[in-house]
Amino acid sequence: MTKNEAVQKMKALMEERAHFMGAYAVMSWDERTGSPSRKGVEGRAKTSGFLAQESFKRLVSPDMKACLECLDAHRDELSGLESAMLREYRRVYNKNIAVPPERVGALTELTGEAEAVWMEARDAGDFARMAPYFEKIFALQREMAGYYGYAEHPYDALLDDYEEGLTVRKLDEFFGALRAELVPLLKKVSAAQQPDTSFLEKSFTVDRQALLSQALARLVGYDMDRGQLGTTQHPFTISVNRHDVRVTTHYYERDLLSAVFSTVHECGHGIYDQGMDPALEAYGLNGGASMSVHESQSRSYENVMCRSRAFVRTLLPRLQTLFPREFSDVSAEALYRAVNVAKASLIRVEADELTYCLHILVRYELEKLIMEDSINVRDLPALWNEKMQEILGVTPPDDAQGVLQDTHWSSGLLGYFPSYALGSAYSAQFMHAMGKEVDIAGCLAMGDFAPINAWLGERIHRHGMTLTAEELMLRVTGEPFTARYFVDYLKEKYGELYA
Amino acid sequence: MTKNEAVQKMKALMEERAHFMGAYAVMSWDERTGSPSRKGVEGRAKTSGFLAQESFKRLVSPDMKACLECLDAHRDELSGLESAMLREYRRVYNKNIAVPPERVGALTELTGEAEAVWMEARDAGDFARMAPYFEKIFALQREMAGYYGYAEHPYDALLDDYEEGLTVRKLDEFFGALRAELVPLLKKVSAAQQPDTSFLEKSFTVDRQALLSQALARLVGYDMDRGQLGTTQHPFTISVNRHDVRVTTHYYERDLLSAVFSTVHECGHGIYDQGMDPALEAYGLNGGASMSVHESQSRSYENVMCRSRAFVRTLLPRLQTLFPREFSDVSAEALYRAVNVAKASLIRVEADELTYCLHILVRYELEKLIMEDSINVRDLPALWNEKMQEILGVTPPDDAQGVLQDTHWSSGLLGYFPSYALGSAYSAQFMHAMGKEVDIAGCLAMGDFAPINAWLGERIHRHGMTLTAEELMLRVTGEPFTARYFVDYLKEKYGELYA
Repeated sequence: MTKNEAVQKMKALMEERAHFMGAYAVMSWDERTGSPSRKGVEGRAKTSGFLAQESFKRLVSPDMKACLECLDAHRDELSGLESAMLREYRRVYNKNIAVPPERVGALTELTGEAEAVWMEARDAGDFARMAPYFEKIFALQREMAGYYGYAEHPYDALLDDYEEGLTVRKLDEFFGALRAELVPLLKKVSAAQQPDTSFLEKSFTVDRQALLSQALARLVGYDMDRGQLGTTQHPFTISVNRHDVRVTTHYYERDLLSAVFSTVHECGHGIYDQGMDPALEAYGLNGGASMSVHESQSRSYENVMCRSRAFVRTLLPRLQTLFPREFSDVSAEALYRAVNVAKASLIRVEADELTYCLHILVRYELEKLIMEDSINVRDLPALWNEKMQEILGVTPPDDAQGVLQDTHWSSGLLGYFPSYALGSAYSAQFMHAMGKEVDIAGCLAMGDFAPINAWLGERIHRHGMTLTAEELMLRVTGEPFTARYFVDYLKEKYGELYA
Repeated sequence: MTKNEAVQKMKALMEERAHFMGAYAVMSWDERTGSPSRKGVEGRAKTSGFLAQESFKRLVSPDMKACLECLDAHRDELSGLESAMLREYRRVYNKNIAVPPERVGALTELTGEAEAVWMEARDAGDFARMAPYFEKIFALQREMAGYYGYAEHPYDALLDDYEEGLTVRKLDEFFGALRAELVPLLKKVSAAQQPDTSFLEKSFTVDRQALLSQALARLVGYDMDRGQLGTTQHPFTISVNRHDVRVTTHYYERDLLSAVFSTVHECGHGIYDQGMDPALEAYGLNGGASMSVHESQSRSYENVMCRSRAFVRTLLPRLQTLFPREFSDVSAEALYRAVNVAKASLIRVEADELTYCLHILVRYELEKLIMEDSINVRDLPALWNEKMQEILGVTPPDDAQGVLQDTHWSSGLLGYFPSYALGSAYSAQFMHAMGKEVDIAGCLAMGDFAPINAWLGERIHRHGMTLTAEELMLRVTGEPFTARYFVDYLKEKYGELYA
């Protein structure tokens, strides 16, 4: 095989994979946004599983092996995109080829069952029901870590799945800084007086909320001609192809803000996927630099930008137009304070900008112990509650509001949680860098996202998977990642808000 | 390979195919019922094309060849389902293996382009724009017929795609009978007085129409837990899997009947697909006996059952509940006459029960000439108009309402049209047989479809593709197919209606 033949063959594998993933995405969209038949779900799940498996097979096929070996031998003759393709798929190949396929199957089967049980166990707050599944899943995850390989900590092997090169060593430092700074900050915030939010405790018709979300999606720069805004209980973003990046939001009559911030959060993900260099798709490099970088974009729109004093000046008149009675007497400052309420709570997905990463810290510490195999699964509920008390100062009254609240462990997604917190921290560092070149507050107050999106598109979005998160951070901000910007941002923002 | 290995391998190929077709179906549903991004359509079309191609590849793969050869050698040891699988897929293999793959690709590419041009050409009534595409498509279809092979007429090779063993010889006899009997009948009907339909020429809110369609779908026995009722301009039925058979309908404020009969038509297709023996799926035999048999089921529900005097007694009180002002003074007899208006018209998809098959006759005669290569494409519009005048007694004022009205030729679907007419005729023969054992009118007047569906399920639906249309007809009705039941049915019905 010549170098050119290997490149063409790999691109052909990438194209096949893109088709499998595109079809998978449409099936996932259908399952979640449509109302497909209840009884057909098992058949659809098998079809989705087949698509995922076929997509995965391309990554570890003998064809892929031959291509990688050929390109390895011609390393010096490769173009930039060819090199990036080789680097990414060599990594993926090496990591996955060591895993016995029947163990992948075992995990898929186990988590498929566990996810269904979890919904019932959570609703009943019945940890004992879930425990045997957790035991098996955690054991399998430790087994996987062995196949993947790691230098220091078994958890590293899983963390690397979501962020190349991420380790316990790095996260200990990161979370250590958060813990040292944010736990005392939360204590102060908790002691201070909460702002008035009574003007939000009203009923807002879903029709008008939908108008608002559509308008906000366009305002922040999400391209409706290359996507669509759907409705689901749990908002998400999914890419069918480069020109079909779909997002969803949810609407609650009694919670106007939930739709607003869910919409701009998902649009942040969507704008990233819509902003990639068209040339990347053919090389299988059309994706986020890492899970955390993806999350950094959604958090930038949701929090740093749309919960800012500047953006509230853009948001308020829109609320006043749609809901004149409810907002005519509300000041921009009152709205700013109301959208930034911070307080310790029990449920991660309902947590605010300040406390969210502390919920992640609880999970991080437990996942570390799980991967070290140093705790008994039956002790998890008590450990969870202890950590919640220690870090957030609250104790769940039951396991439904405690250790059973997330689907991740049932789905076998250990190592995923840290990317949420890391995403917020990346966001702060990226936005700090942007602030040196773009008048962010000016843009937000004018409701003009074009200069912001141009900067993000040029510096971050267009690169897709051609740079690692580490490389991207260094290139965009001129320094390696540090928790400092995030901590400073939160201390300044909440220090001022809660005096 | 042992016999058992060949069976297992073929079942594995069938399972893969089912996944590809299931994913294709969901993508098709998404494209037609959702509002996916305009700019993403090209990418989605490529993904759908990939799925279709992969599904097709399984039918002509070396694996399939080996399985077929092994099973051919063990013909006497096969179970009933194994034999049926061998028969069907040997036929498909033999037929398709002769076609050079690049000619399949050429046809797909050509029709993909032609379909887009057709929409514009039709809207503009511009036949000259379409002519070069028709020329190329027809030439390719004649070429395909050569690859497929045929005994008497090149058209036979294409007809066989939609109904195994269907030939020009058989259709000439069928359409000859229709022509001889129905053209004079239509003349009489046209001379008679039309019933009063003024009570239908009102506005009916779409919300209430949707309630009606949902209720009718359930009433006729379509299982909502194993499907769903969507909305599209052109109603259709599509199966994702055995437990996910989806149908659509359309709603026009000024045309209440359109939704009613579209809904029950598609539900007829849906009930067939929902009623197949669960064991068939694993053998790739989970489908209609033929296109015409499928159409016979939809036509049975739409016409023979739901346009009957008996069913109108079930329908009318429902209309009176939903639209009391419009229907309080309407009698069952007036409604029966209004839903059975027959008159010559220009557009096939708007044609009534009596004239529909005459529209098909026009197309059948032209397709025969096209496949014989005995006409010039540029003469098609004039020939079309002549045939319309000769058969239906009307002449299209332009090509948009004439030769350009259907998408089939642009899509390369020559040989498809006859199955519509044949379906209606099959329906009459099946229903006649049912009438000997089931009190159809009694059931319809009571709105109780259970005995009807039990009979259809047992005699027709559960068999799927294990019997050919010919075998099924003989087994269900005790005699070979004849046009007589259809002609008699129409003569009796419309003779009485138009005195």
